Amino acid sequence: MSESTWQRRHVISLADFTVPDYELVLQTALSFTEVLSRRNKKVPTLQGKVVANLFFESSTRTRNSFELAAKRLSADTLNFAPGTSSLSKGETILDTARTFLAMGTDIMVIRHQAAGVPSQIALDMDRLGGRVAVLNAGDGKHEHPTQALLDLFTLCSHINPAAPSAKDIKGKKVAIAGDILHSRVARSNLYSLVTNGADVHLAAPPTLLPEEFAEYGVTVHHQLAPALEDADFVMTLRLQTERMSQHLIPSLREYYAQFGITRDRLARCAPQVQVLHPGPVNRGVEISSDLMDDPRLSLIEKQVTNGVAVRMSLLYLMGTLMGSAA
Amino acid sequence: MSESTWQRRHVISLADFTVPDYELVLQTALSFTEVLSRRNKKVPTLQGKVVANLFFESSTRTRNSFELAAKRLSADTLNFAPGTSSLSKGETILDTARTFLAMGTDIMVIRHQAAGVPSQIALDMDRLGGRVAVLNAGDGKHEHPTQALLDLFTLCSHINPAAPSAKDIKGKKVAIAGDILHSRVARSNLYSLVTNGADVHLAAPPTLLPEEFAEYGVTVHHQLAPALEDADFVMTLRLQTERMSQHLIPSLREYYAQFGITRDRLARCAPQVQVLHPGPVNRGVEISSDLMDDPRLSLIEKQVTNGVAVRMSLLYLMGTLMGSAA
Amino acid sequence: MSESTWQRRHVISLADFTVPDYELVLQTALSFTEVLSRRNKKVPTLQGKVVANLFFESSTRTRNSFELAAKRLSADTLNFAPGTSSLSKGETILDTARTFLAMGTDIMVIRHQAAGVPSQIALDMDRLGGRVAVLNAGDGKHEHPTQALLDLFTLCSHINPAAPSAKDIKGKKVAIAGDILHSRVARSNLYSLVTNGADVHLAAPPTLLPEEFAEYGVTVHHQLAPALEDADFVMTLRLQTERMSQHLIPSLREYYAQFGITRDRLARCAPQVQVLHPGPVNRGVEISSDLMDDPRLSLIEKQVTNGVAVRMSLLYLMGTLMGSAA
Repeated sequence: MSESTWQRRHVISLADFTVPDYELVLQTALSFTEVLSRRNKKVPTLQGKVVANLFFESSTRTRNSFELAAKRLSADTLNFAPGTSSLSKGETILDTARTFLAMGTDIMVIRHQAAGVPSQIALDMDRLGGRVAVLNAGDGKHEHPTQALLDLFTLCSHINPAAPSAKDIKGKKVAIAGDILHSRVARSNLYSLVTNGADVHLAAPPTLLPEEFAEYGVTVHHQLAPALEDADFVMTLRLQTERMSQHLIPSLREYYAQFGITRDRLARCAPQVQVLHPGPVNRGVEISSDLMDDPRLSLIEKQVTNGVAVRMSLLYLMGTLMGSAA
Repeated sequence: MSESTWQRRHVISLADFTVPDYELVLQTALSFTEVLSRRNKKVPTLQGKVVANLFFESSTRTRNSFELAAKRLSADTLNFAPGTSSLSKGETILDTARTFLAMGTDIMVIRHQAAGVPSQIALDMDRLGGRVAVLNAGDGKHEHPTQALLDLFTLCSHINPAAPSAKDIKGKKVAIAGDILHSRVARSNLYSLVTNGADVHLAAPPTLLPEEFAEYGVTVHHQLAPALEDADFVMTLRLQTERMSQHLIPSLREYYAQFGITRDRLARCAPQVQVLHPGPVNRGVEISSDLMDDPRLSLIEKQVTNGVAVRMSLLYLMGTLMGSAA
Repeated sequence: MSESTWQRRHVISLADFTVPDYELVLQTALSFTEVLSRRNKKVPTLQGKVVANLFFESSTRTRNSFELAAKRLSADTLNFAPGTSSLSKGETILDTARTFLAMGTDIMVIRHQAAGVPSQIALDMDRLGGRVAVLNAGDGKHEHPTQALLDLFTLCSHINPAAPSAKDIKGKKVAIAGDILHSRVARSNLYSLVTNGADVHLAAPPTLLPEEFAEYGVTVHHQLAPALEDADFVMTLRLQTERMSQHLIPSLREYYAQFGITRDRLARCAPQVQVLHPGPVNRGVEISSDLMDDPRLSLIEKQVTNGVAVRMSLLYLMGTLMGSAA
């Protein structure tokens, strides 16, 4: 594994990720996939380093994925739980982050319900002269870079299992259906897929997909059918059920009738079409239950598996840069 | 330690446990007891394996016991906390388990307030072709196999400290007093004690002990005295105080007066009688406070200590089978 | 590192700490500071030992500091979370501690909202013949010894960076301002600073600082100015905002106007004055926001950093004694 081209202290957004950046993350993840197929899945790479999971917004799936990735690299992990925290004692978010910096944290993995918090923290850490690396694990409606990177790895590994590369997604039609406006997963995927040359089609009701999204270099649809037409991959997004009470969708049933992904609807797609979802899934809302469980059509479990390898990849690249800078 | 006769992927219930199964768990636990007497209590047995504690029903005691057992075997541990979980986002329990499977979990330790959940998850994992092992850490009113196994180990170690064997319990009179109907601990102990030849006597008010329990091959009493008569061991069970509001017992005071275990009442038992309780104890409800603290009469602390060794034993047997199958 | 003079099983209070005790903790912390400057910050000292964090009162900062200290010594850690505990099932605090003892805990780190709980638990553990060591991580308004020890280490390291010693604080004027009456941090610091020969001046409104505090061998002020006069160090304390509803202070604004530490007020102090605060800080209540962020005037981040080294020092001294006694 060579980190020679890795120049980033923090990973906050994919907006400025270059093709070599994507390729390096993918190739590193691929080598960790090999490690994860061994009997002993642990490597000593980050021994003696500290990875702090600051999940101001709670999460099972993503936090455990990061924690496992850190442990498999032999890092020590610290967890910040919002319910039992100093925040309730009036401490600011930046002061919480500074405390973890001062304790000797090497990498901070940050999730927050407000867009921009990981970026703010990274700026503050740099200003203080700290060598800590900040990794965005999802901030409000802004970005969720590790999800898009594991999606890219999953797509390319499916296309080219023997030797996956970011180039593999070039020219493939990827349909993204769902609550795109409020989705940090969608936003990070737009950067990733467009930069790597995919033909991206978005589908959602106008309340969840303003026309301006075309500026990303994608095609905007307000119906599902044209987006699915000959699609190689269909990504669905989690629908927050409170969108209904906000009158952005008429009802969950109506939403499913128009935008739910079902086996029938996939008939319009390319023959080998595969479905993805970042999870957790509302079965029967974004996707039919039987489709989700069909291993011939769904990459959803592969996404979870690849999540660990991709997060190991980023922690390795970020942690090794920190180490070599020290 | 030989796992040659261990054939079980999952441990959900003791209903079909055989005498050799019990013996193997006990002898393996015994060897870990030796490890736990060393200065460095850690062994590399499960290095690189992942043990996920999915405690849908919260618990301090059992979760920490499993976590310590896993760590002493050098496994990495993941914890699922119900309060902060994807469940509140509408994810099903099976989808949560599948996520942990996909992340690479080797052993899932599952506690749930509903009977049957660990069994359902185990079936689903097998159906998906996963190699994960499922260990029931307590499901509703159904079973709590590790508690019964640690109880058996505690009983046999007390009878025969030099070389404990499951055979040691044969013919011993064991009285179980308390809320048997609602107790998963009692149910697992019935299987374990009857299979290993103990003479089991149950004592509880009729509302907490229907006559059908005789079908397990035990003697049913609705008063404490005959159950205690010449008993070698007395197991008390935790009483959920909500049984009172459900009108299953008249009052805690009344319950204690009739079924509480006290020093005086033990006079009917065999001279060397010992008391057990799975914890946490309501002092002055199930058992008198001074009796609980008397190391000559109580095995309660030994149960906790043995819990770690027995859980190491099961994780080892299950984890090694998985490893060798890989 | 020599633990030859370390005779304490438990660390509950600094009331009877001697100068050699302080010196030993500081010199041991100093050697761990060297470890923490390495690339791999982990040492195998407590490998195979179990450190249980029993935080009946929740805390982010202190719990993570102890957890990191334990992990860097290669101990296994267990965490007790009050919300999800057996306590809600009616178990007593002592029974909870006994459970952790019986599971094989070597060191219990205990925080509780009531004064005296760590001491009670230590007595109970000794009575049971356990070899467990109890470390007070803050009990009600009583004591918080590790905070005072890290404060002492921070003060002495600032005075004499090349070779800090507890002797360095001798004759220095230390002003402590804030809610002294309710502060366990203040109480532990009084013992530490007075024993090591500092000239301690307290400043708070009479409702938060009764005259009897003079008995500690310190000077009591009810205004800030005379305490700050020529002070070498100013320690501020966290103000619980509920003191206002208890009518102990008129308002936060009024409190800040009279006792808040600002850049202007520091003009009265010695030229090289430094400010300390145990955190979490209420900016603009105990201390002005800009002052807290000024690395030339504030030792607050150093306190957090030193907290890990000092806690490693205590865990090492306590854990090694236990080991050698075993």
